[in-house]
Amino acid sequence: MKSIVAVAFLFCTWILSAGELSEVVTSPNGNIKVVVSLSKKGKIQYEVAFKNKKLIGKSKLGVLLENRDLTEGFLLENIKRNSVDEVWDQVWGEESKVRNHYNELALVFKNNKGQLGVIFRIFDDGVGFRYQILSENGKTEDLLVKEEISEFDLEEDMVGFWQPSDWDSNEHVYETTKISKIDGFKSVREGSIHTQFIPDFRAVQTPIVLVGKKVHIALHEAALVDYPAMHLKVDNENFKFTSFLIPNAGLWQKAKITTPFNTPWRTIIISEDAAGLLRSRMILNLNEPCKIKETSWIKPMKYMGIWWEMHLGKSSWEYLDKNTMKPNGKHGATNANTRRYIDFASKNGFGGVLVEGWNTGWEDWFGLWKEEIFDFQTPYPDYDLPALAKYSIEKKCPLIVHHETSAAVTAYEKYLTPAFDLMKKNGLNAIKSGYVGRIIPKGEWHDGQWMINHYNRVIEKAAEYKIMVDAHEPVRPTGLHRTWPNFMACEAARGNEFNGWSSGNPPEHETILPFTRLLGGPMDYTPGIFNIQFKEYKDKNNTNQVHTTLCKQLALYITMYSPLQMAADFPEHYEKHMDAFQFIKDVAVDWDESKILNASIGNYVTIVRKEKGKENWFLGSITDEFPREFDLTFDFLKEGVNYQMVVYADGKNAHWKENPTSYEISSRSVKKNDKVKIKLASGGGCAISLISK
Amino acid sequence: MKSIVAVAFLFCTWILSAGELSEVVTSPNGNIKVVVSLSKKGKIQYEVAFKNKKLIGKSKLGVLLENRDLTEGFLLENIKRNSVDEVWDQVWGEESKVRNHYNELALVFKNNKGQLGVIFRIFDDGVGFRYQILSENGKTEDLLVKEEISEFDLEEDMVGFWQPSDWDSNEHVYETTKISKIDGFKSVREGSIHTQFIPDFRAVQTPIVLVGKKVHIALHEAALVDYPAMHLKVDNENFKFTSFLIPNAGLWQKAKITTPFNTPWRTIIISEDAAGLLRSRMILNLNEPCKIKETSWIKPMKYMGIWWEMHLGKSSWEYLDKNTMKPNGKHGATNANTRRYIDFASKNGFGGVLVEGWNTGWEDWFGLWKEEIFDFQTPYPDYDLPALAKYSIEKKCPLIVHHETSAAVTAYEKYLTPAFDLMKKNGLNAIKSGYVGRIIPKGEWHDGQWMINHYNRVIEKAAEYKIMVDAHEPVRPTGLHRTWPNFMACEAARGNEFNGWSSGNPPEHETILPFTRLLGGPMDYTPGIFNIQFKEYKDKNNTNQVHTTLCKQLALYITMYSPLQMAADFPEHYEKHMDAFQFIKDVAVDWDESKILNASIGNYVTIVRKEKGKENWFLGSITDEFPREFDLTFDFLKEGVNYQMVVYADGKNAHWKENPTSYEISSRSVKKNDKVKIKLASGGGCAISLISK
Repeated sequence: MKSIVAVAFLFCTWILSAGELSEVVTSPNGNIKVVVSLSKKGKIQYEVAFKNKKLIGKSKLGVLLENRDLTEGFLLENIKRNSVDEVWDQVWGEESKVRNHYNELALVFKNNKGQLGVIFRIFDDGVGFRYQILSENGKTEDLLVKEEISEFDLEEDMVGFWQPSDWDSNEHVYETTKISKIDGFKSVREGSIHTQFIPDFRAVQTPIVLVGKKVHIALHEAALVDYPAMHLKVDNENFKFTSFLIPNAGLWQKAKITTPFNTPWRTIIISEDAAGLLRSRMILNLNEPCKIKETSWIKPMKYMGIWWEMHLGKSSWEYLDKNTMKPNGKHGATNANTRRYIDFASKNGFGGVLVEGWNTGWEDWFGLWKEEIFDFQTPYPDYDLPALAKYSIEKKCPLIVHHETSAAVTAYEKYLTPAFDLMKKNGLNAIKSGYVGRIIPKGEWHDGQWMINHYNRVIEKAAEYKIMVDAHEPVRPTGLHRTWPNFMACEAARGNEFNGWSSGNPPEHETILPFTRLLGGPMDYTPGIFNIQFKEYKDKNNTNQVHTTLCKQLALYITMYSPLQMAADFPEHYEKHMDAFQFIKDVAVDWDESKILNASIGNYVTIVRKEKGKENWFLGSITDEFPREFDLTFDFLKEGVNYQMVVYADGKNAHWKENPTSYEISSRSVKKNDKVKIKLASGGGCAISLISK
Repeated sequence: MKSIVAVAFLFCTWILSAGELSEVVTSPNGNIKVVVSLSKKGKIQYEVAFKNKKLIGKSKLGVLLENRDLTEGFLLENIKRNSVDEVWDQVWGEESKVRNHYNELALVFKNNKGQLGVIFRIFDDGVGFRYQILSENGKTEDLLVKEEISEFDLEEDMVGFWQPSDWDSNEHVYETTKISKIDGFKSVREGSIHTQFIPDFRAVQTPIVLVGKKVHIALHEAALVDYPAMHLKVDNENFKFTSFLIPNAGLWQKAKITTPFNTPWRTIIISEDAAGLLRSRMILNLNEPCKIKETSWIKPMKYMGIWWEMHLGKSSWEYLDKNTMKPNGKHGATNANTRRYIDFASKNGFGGVLVEGWNTGWEDWFGLWKEEIFDFQTPYPDYDLPALAKYSIEKKCPLIVHHETSAAVTAYEKYLTPAFDLMKKNGLNAIKSGYVGRIIPKGEWHDGQWMINHYNRVIEKAAEYKIMVDAHEPVRPTGLHRTWPNFMACEAARGNEFNGWSSGNPPEHETILPFTRLLGGPMDYTPGIFNIQFKEYKDKNNTNQVHTTLCKQLALYITMYSPLQMAADFPEHYEKHMDAFQFIKDVAVDWDESKILNASIGNYVTIVRKEKGKENWFLGSITDEFPREFDLTFDFLKEGVNYQMVVYADGKNAHWKENPTSYEISSRSVKKNDKVKIKLASGGGCAISLISK
C-alpha cells in the first residue's frame, strides 16, 4: 500500500512540501538527497531520496538522556556545511587506496533541556549520520543515555536478509523475508547457539540488508566506540525500523557518556544493485584514520591451526578426563602435534599456527558462568610454550596464541598484561580471542557498552604491544580496523565451525555474509575444509558435514574477504589433495584492487582481486544450492601481460551433499578481455588464479 | 461476568466435576477445601473453596528448569497425608504462643523429564503450597530455574490493595483498584523513589490483599530462602495472577538451586473479614523453627536516633562540604549530639540510640553506583566511636550501628567481618543496615536470588556474633524472623521518612500496611513524629509534613507491630510535649496477646495488645482522612483487676493537615467489660494505656 504511493511521488514535489525549515544536502553525484526538517512539535526528522524516488520517509531523530529529553521541542540553532574529497592509504584491505568523498551537513538543535548536534555525511554510496551530545559552554558532563531514537521509515515492503536481535550472538542462520514478515521466533528454534538472548522477536540486529524494487540498502553503524551496539525494532505494518541500544547491566540505562560525545555513525548504504553494496567503503570512511604510527609489524597472513580436530572430536581442548582427573590421552595441543602443524604450515608458506587448548582450564570452561577459569599463561604439561614458540619462529610460522575467555571478561582484563608480557617474551605477536558464554560481569551482554569498551581496550593494548588481534564472539565489526589495523579480523557471525557439529550453514549462507556481516569488517570464517563429510571422526549416524563443495571452500578465500585466512583442515587431509591445496598456497591475503563481477544476495557472488604490489589476480565465485554457469570477461587484466590461469572447478557431477569433493583443475594462458565460462555445482564454487608470467 | 457464574456455583457440584484424579484436602475446621488434579495434558492444577464457595478456579502449578520442563505430561506417583496441631513459643511477637494447626497433602508427580513434589498445607486461616524439586535416586544436582508458574485464578473481580512489580523497591504508595483495573503505570509517576525498576505495568508485588464480596485474601510467600522473590503477573480480563521470579543478572535464569530443593511457600491467607488477616499466623507457621539456641541477648526495644535531623536538613550525614572539602559545620553524628541523644533516651528508658552518618563515605554515597564507598569501620573525626559506645552502654542505651551499603553489596560482604568485630570489641549488638541504590554486583536486583542470599547471610552471620538486625530497603519479609529472631525488623515499604521530603504518605497509608506489608513481618516504620509540620527546618514554600495527627503517631506504636520501635523525633520536640511523650515511654514492644477490635483495609484499624509478662494493655486506633468514632468494650481485660487508663485523643478540632498537634489527655480507672468511646480526627488516631494497679 505504502509502496504504491511512493512510486507516484516525485522528489521535487516532496521537497516543496517539506516546509520552510528544511535543509537539503545531496551526495557528490547528486543521486542521493537528504532533507532534514523539524516537525510541528519540534522533533528532528529526515528523509532520503535515491535517484529522485523517496527511499526513507519522514523519520525521527533524537536521544533520551536521564533527566534530559532530547527528542522534541527543538529549534535549529546552527548549520554548517562542508565537502571532502580525499584518498587515503589502507594498511591492508580489499583495495590499497580508498576515496573519501562526501558532502556534510552539521546541525545543532536546542530545546529547553539542552543541545543536540546531528551530522549528516552524504556519499555517493550512502548516508551516515551521528549525534553530538553537547553541554552548555562546552562543559564536561557525565550523562546517562536512556535510549537513542533513530528511525528508518522505509517506503516499501523490502525483502530483508536478517538475524534476530540477539544481545549475545551473531551466529544465527540468516532469514530472508519481507519486512512485514520479520519475526525472530522462527530463527531461534535451531538451537545450536550456546549463548543467546532474544527478548524481542520483532527486532533485528545489524547489518541488515534490504532489497527493494530498484534499490538495495544496508542499515548498520560505523565507529562503535564507548557506546552500546544499536539494534532495530521492526514495525511490520509500516516497514519502519527504530533504533534501540543494548543496555548495561540492570537494564535501566544504555550508556554512560561524557560530553561532548559523538555517537557512532548510523549508516545507510544505498545502491542500485547488490554489487554496489560490496564496493561501498562508506563504513571505513566514517571511521577515524589509523592511530598506529608504525604499522610494518601488521602482516596479513594465511594460517593453520590445531582447532578443527577438536570440533570433529578427533582430539580435545582439555588435557584431563573430568571423571578420573587423569590425562585423557587425546589432548590436541601437544608438543608433537604442534610441531607437526608447524612443519606442514611452514613448508607450504603459511604465516602462523594457531594452537587451541594449550593452556589450563578447559576441563570446566564451558557453560558454568565461572569467573576464574583461564589465566592465559599456564600451559598444560605436554605443551612446552617457550620451545614451541622458538621452533615456530625459526620456521617463520609463529604461534598464534589462543585467548579463550569463556566470557569471564573480568578475569581476562586482570590477566591481560602478564599474558601479553609472556607472548612478547616468547617473540609472538598474534592472538585469537574468544568470548563463548554469558558475560562476566554478570548481567552484561556481548553487545553492551561495557563489552564494547572491553573489545576496544584489548585492541588498543594489543597495539601498544604490537600484537595482532583476531576476536571470536565479539560484537559485530563497524569498520574500526581502519583506526586500529592490528584488529585483523573477527568472527561475529556463523562460521564454518557450525558445519562440524550442528545442522550447519545452508549453502546460501556464504552468499549472504558478504552483503551483511562483512560490510562491517573482515571475518575469520575459517574456510578450506577438504574432508567435507568427515564420517571417520563421527559415529555412524552422523549427518553433519560441510555444506559446500571442495571448490567452494577454495573460492571462499576470495569471496569472504579477510587479511587473516585460515586453512582450517588437517595437514593429512590436504596431503590427499595437494593439487587443489595449491590454490590455498598461492592465494594472496592483501589486495590492490577488488572487482565484483556479479552478485545476487543469497544466490551467488563472483569477485576478483589483484594481489597487492603484484600483477597477479585471484577469482572466487560461489553459488547457493542452485548450479550456475557464468560467462566472465577478463577486462580487469593488464594490457600486454600474459597470465597463467589455473581453474579449480567443481567436477561434472559435483554436488555439495552427494559428491562434494569432485573437482577438476585445468590450466592455460590468458590475457586481457579473454572470455572464460565457469560452472558451479549445487552448493559449489570456482576458484581461479591468474599469475603474471 | 466470571464472578456472576461463580456465585451460582456450589462446591459439591464442583468436586464431582473434578474427575477421578482429584485429591481433596481441607482445613482443620473444614472451611477451606483444596482439590488437586491433573489436566488432560498432565498439568498439575488446584482449586480452592472457602465456606463451600469457589474462591480460586483451576490454576496450574509447575516449574520450568533449564533443559527440564516440569509443567506438563505428569502422572501422580506418590501421595502422603499428615496432620499437625502444636503450639510453639515465640522469642518475641504479637503473641507469646502460636498454634500451628494444619492438614498436609504431599504429592509427587513424574513426567519424562523428572520429578516434582508439591506440598499443600491447609490451615484454618489459609493455604500454603511449595514445590520440591527432586532428582532421581535422591541425587544432588545443580539446576537452573527458568520460571515458576503458579497460578491464582480468582473467581471474582476483587478489590486489590497493591504496589506495582518493582524489582528494586517496595516504597510505593498503595493503589486501590479492582483486579481488572490494575495498571502499574500510574503508580510510577509520583517520582520520590530513588531506585525503581518496573518493566511490566501489568504485574504486582506481594503481599497483595484482595477483598471480595464475602472474603478477604492475601497472596504472598513464606520462608524465602535461596530463591528469588515471587511477583505476580496480572490477567486483567480473567482476574488471574501468575507467578514470576525476579531474575539473576543477565535475565536468562531466575535461580540456581541444588536438589533436593524446597521452594518458598506460596501463601493464600483467607478470612471472612479484614481482622482475620491480622490474626493469621500462617506465614510464621510455614517458616522453620528458631535456629538460634541461646536467645536471651535478643531484646525488643524502643530506640531513638540521629536520623530525622538529616531528613529535615537540620544536620547532614556527611562531614565535608563537597565543594570546599572542608567540614561543612552541620554534621549530625558528632560526639556532643550523640551524647545529647543518649542522655535523653537513657533518661526516658529507651534501649538504644541509632547514629547515622558516623562513618566516612557519605560525601558521595548517593546514586553514583560506586562499589567502594563505605568500610563500616572508619568514623568521621568528630565521632569517637569507642568513647561513645562505652558511654552509651553505661547509660543502658547502647549505640545501634548504622551500616548503609549504598547497595554496593560486594563491598559490604567484604567488610562485614571486620565491621562486626569492631562492634563486638566495643560491646555493641545491633545494626541498622540500608540498601539505597542500584545493586552492585551490577545487574542484580533487590528482589533477586543473589540479594536474597545476601540478606539471609548477614542475618545468619549476625546471629553468630549475637547481633540484632534492622534492615532497610531489603526484600519484603516472609516470616523468617521465626527462624532467625535476631532479624528484628525491616523497612521494605514506604516509611514515615517519605513525609519528610516527598509528597508523603496519604492518611490511608498506615491503614493499609498492616494488611499487606506487615503480614510478612515487623516493619521499622519510625513513628513518633510530634513536630508534624517542621516549617522551621524548610524554606517558606515547604508543604511537606507528616500526614497524621500527633495522636495517630502514638497509635502507630500499636497498629504497626514491631519489636523495634523508634521514637523518631528530636529530643527538643519531645520536651515540648512530655505529657504525650509519656505514652511512648510507657508502651511495650513485646506481647502476650493481641486483639483486633475492628478493621477495614484502607479505612481504619484498632488493636489492643497485652504487654508480655505483665497485666498491662496498650491500645491503638487509627483512621484515614475520615474522622471516626468507635465504641469499644474492654472485654479483653482480666476479671477483678483495676487498670489506670490514660487516653491520648485527638483534640476537638484536630485535623492531620489543619491542626495536627491538637490533643487531649484524660485518665480514669477501668475494669473488664467497661465501655469507652473514642473519637479520631481526620487523619487521626487514639492511643490508650491500661496499666494494672
